[in-house]
Amino acid sequence: MIQSKTLQELADYLGGTVKGNAKLVVDGLAPLDAAGPDKVTFLANPKYAAKVAETMAGAVLMAPGGESYGRNVIEVANPYLGFAKLLTLFYTVAQTPRGVLPEAVLGTNVSLGDAISIYPGVVIGNNVTIGDRVVIHPGAVIYDGVTIGDDCVIHANAVVRERCRLGKRCKLQPGAVIGSDGFGYAPDGSSYYPIPQIGIVVLEDDVEVGANSTVDRAALEVTLIRRGTKLDNLVQIAHNCQIGEDCMIVSQVGIAGSSKIGNHVTLAGQVGIVGHVTIGDNVIVGAQGGVPGSLAGNAYYSGTPVMPHKEWLRAMGTLPKLPDMRKKLHELEKKIAELEARLGKE
Amino acid sequence: MIQSKTLQELADYLGGTVKGNAKLVVDGLAPLDAAGPDKVTFLANPKYAAKVAETMAGAVLMAPGGESYGRNVIEVANPYLGFAKLLTLFYTVAQTPRGVLPEAVLGTNVSLGDAISIYPGVVIGNNVTIGDRVVIHPGAVIYDGVTIGDDCVIHANAVVRERCRLGKRCKLQPGAVIGSDGFGYAPDGSSYYPIPQIGIVVLEDDVEVGANSTVDRAALEVTLIRRGTKLDNLVQIAHNCQIGEDCMIVSQVGIAGSSKIGNHVTLAGQVGIVGHVTIGDNVIVGAQGGVPGSLAGNAYYSGTPVMPHKEWLRAMGTLPKLPDMRKKLHELEKKIAELEARLGKE
Amino acid sequence: MIQSKTLQELADYLGGTVKGNAKLVVDGLAPLDAAGPDKVTFLANPKYAAKVAETMAGAVLMAPGGESYGRNVIEVANPYLGFAKLLTLFYTVAQTPRGVLPEAVLGTNVSLGDAISIYPGVVIGNNVTIGDRVVIHPGAVIYDGVTIGDDCVIHANAVVRERCRLGKRCKLQPGAVIGSDGFGYAPDGSSYYPIPQIGIVVLEDDVEVGANSTVDRAALEVTLIRRGTKLDNLVQIAHNCQIGEDCMIVSQVGIAGSSKIGNHVTLAGQVGIVGHVTIGDNVIVGAQGGVPGSLAGNAYYSGTPVMPHKEWLRAMGTLPKLPDMRKKLHELEKKIAELEARLGKE
Repeated sequence: MIQSKTLQELADYLGGTVKGNAKLVVDGLAPLDAAGPDKVTFLANPKYAAKVAETMAGAVLMAPGGESYGRNVIEVANPYLGFAKLLTLFYTVAQTPRGVLPEAVLGTNVSLGDAISIYPGVVIGNNVTIGDRVVIHPGAVIYDGVTIGDDCVIHANAVVRERCRLGKRCKLQPGAVIGSDGFGYAPDGSSYYPIPQIGIVVLEDDVEVGANSTVDRAALEVTLIRRGTKLDNLVQIAHNCQIGEDCMIVSQVGIAGSSKIGNHVTLAGQVGIVGHVTIGDNVIVGAQGGVPGSLAGNAYYSGTPVMPHKEWLRAMGTLPKLPDMRKKLHELEKKIAELEARLGKE
Repeated sequence: MIQSKTLQELADYLGGTVKGNAKLVVDGLAPLDAAGPDKVTFLANPKYAAKVAETMAGAVLMAPGGESYGRNVIEVANPYLGFAKLLTLFYTVAQTPRGVLPEAVLGTNVSLGDAISIYPGVVIGNNVTIGDRVVIHPGAVIYDGVTIGDDCVIHANAVVRERCRLGKRCKLQPGAVIGSDGFGYAPDGSSYYPIPQIGIVVLEDDVEVGANSTVDRAALEVTLIRRGTKLDNLVQIAHNCQIGEDCMIVSQVGIAGSSKIGNHVTLAGQVGIVGHVTIGDNVIVGAQGGVPGSLAGNAYYSGTPVMPHKEWLRAMGTLPKLPDMRKKLHELEKKIAELEARLGKE
Repeated sequence: MIQSKTLQELADYLGGTVKGNAKLVVDGLAPLDAAGPDKVTFLANPKYAAKVAETMAGAVLMAPGGESYGRNVIEVANPYLGFAKLLTLFYTVAQTPRGVLPEAVLGTNVSLGDAISIYPGVVIGNNVTIGDRVVIHPGAVIYDGVTIGDDCVIHANAVVRERCRLGKRCKLQPGAVIGSDGFGYAPDGSSYYPIPQIGIVVLEDDVEVGANSTVDRAALEVTLIRRGTKLDNLVQIAHNCQIGEDCMIVSQVGIAGSSKIGNHVTLAGQVGIVGHVTIGDNVIVGAQGGVPGSLAGNAYYSGTPVMPHKEWLRAMGTLPKLPDMRKKLHELEKKIAELEARLGKE
């Protein structure tokens, strides 16, 4: 499964330019300080530019105009992206399609695309549509009426409930749950009456959902995650949320019901967002931040409740000094009373 | 599957009263601003009362004595509850019982109720009792000695471990785990010796557990969740906890071992509660709150560590001003020193 | 299944000493205040020493030199550990190996140890090695190339992805996921390109992973959890992390990518640790703590961002007084201005 490629072939694949021996053959990737002459390495962070002089690598991926120190170089606009693409080229192997293995269980009226793999222990309901080249790993359960787009990968024991829809190239890690009932109850005296959750979840193209993350179906309409958004592990998206395009939702984030998240938003680990708020495009919320209301776009927030990140850094830097400040305040109060006493009442 | 009902039939179903054309036929529900003449809508929040004048709905569910603006009205004491009940009536369909499907695996001495559905890929151990009308979806695993009450619904890939007991009408969302081993270890030098967790979990009637939530079995006796309590997704209940009746435990809450939660407690998202504490009835803890000790009932708390909610709001409002306060404090200190110098030593 | 043992047998089993009637026969364990004459109880916390005088227990496990109040005593260095070991002796039963049950599905080139139990609904890939006495419960999925050491227990619906390795005596609770793809993406314009995660996860001996916890595979090399470390439920370990020996990682903790945790570290519930930091040996982080950087060992930290625990306690005790401090500061400012006015400009 080892592949060999010339530097010219790699440059053509990445849309880059070789400087040096374009015919050199390499067979894989390695870090700057570990790569040998049969490997390509990369320089993404200018901080490490001097390491290029010492690398044993056969070639270095770097941005145009960088100092080559006499090495073979493949110049590409985005060396880190180039590295990721070469990792895919060298180290991932398209599985040979297995078809529907005998220990899988399919309902009636299941439409199957070409070149699929449906593994043992998969259970698929009725009226399900599966696109081309889809892979469904063991133990995954697809309820009635689900649609799964081309090139999706559903890992072991993931669940997609009734009528939910996945776009193309979506990936569900093991144990991910799409379309669980939203947490909706009507108070009935001191008890709670469950409100039927009759909506669905839609994942657009290129959405990825981490291991054991959960996306609840809408009460009436659609919980929507737009194109390109990635959810890490153990994330919770409540019913009726709309998440924009190309968001990064890091592990253990929770977003309460009916909130709308803009495009290209980054929520760091363990952030919580209340329900019914709107988060603007390009917002970043720092780890463990608590968002109690809507946030304007293009800004970086932290804290519980969130404030601008720099303000939070200053406040947190002062926090440990709070007890000393209180003591000092008492001292000053006393000194002022003494001064007032010495001056006498006016 | 569309059902048609007269307003009188709906009023009778809800225990309400029609004002207007009781014979009008409707076939579903919709929001105030989207409902047509064949739909019922509802007014729960008085803030939107004026919208009743403009709705195209065939009828409006509202509280007795509200202004009808000439619309047909069904008066009910709790319009939101009425809406939830009509959603159930119009949009949920009782599944035809499927029996035990051939690809399910049952152990010995399994007692099965009437009108059940046990789907492919379900595995049930020995000495299990399943009540009437229970539905167990694909991939769910029921260990030995479990009891599941009438009308329970166990979704795909949920797990109920040995000897745990579910009351009537319990619902487990996909991936929920009931009865995993409690996190108990005895220090043995610098290592940890696992303490056998030989107790069980009991869910009383009408308990619902969200997707991928986990409820640990007790060390010796019972982890207990009382009637009517609802757990959202990704919630953790540790061993030996006792959760009261009709609590709402929102997503990603964690409750450590042996804590006792009262009745009708609401824990908002990502709240954490330490072990061995008691939380009084009707407590509310705001999102991300951290509870380090017992809490008196009938109060609303927030923050880490929690304080009364209003106190927390005030403290948090002041927090961003902390660096300015510190600066001001230094200035005042200096001014006082100057004043003291001018007055001389006494 | 009830076993009867003499006190001498129990003392021999624990490496302790009987004081009193070594021939007395008991058949189980119970708490100090509930134990009858056929049961052993234990005194671990000296606070409860006086209860020994009142217990009805047949014998008391206690540390050497404790007051026996005339009871039969088994003296052991660590009574709590002794209690845990006797729980194992009296109440846990080694299951009879079941072999590979017919409804399990095994790939090619699967190497099976002696005395295993592979339950219905388990799916095992190709080139997998399973050690002696391993138990794999229903619905668990083992991908290609996995190695599972002797005496491991894999609970229902847990997943171990391709090429990951488990040492001896590891335990996965239901729904645990080992080896899901790390959350790694290269920015590509405003979108994200998934970086192949070609590394693995290694769990050394005696590692336990809680229900629905997730451990991501490394990007290139190994996500490593060392001997004896225990993860509670719903814990997230990101790619490339290295967790030391004998750590206790409590429920809902999240550790971001490439962080290194020392030996014997305790992370309380809901703690979050950022990526690329180093946490020293014997560190304790209090519940909900947020760790933004590396931490020196042998210390107890709390808060977000963390500070020394005692400092945090003092700061948190002052926090609710912050609004009053601010008010007081304004008052003092006014008083000083008055004093300055009275003294006139110099």
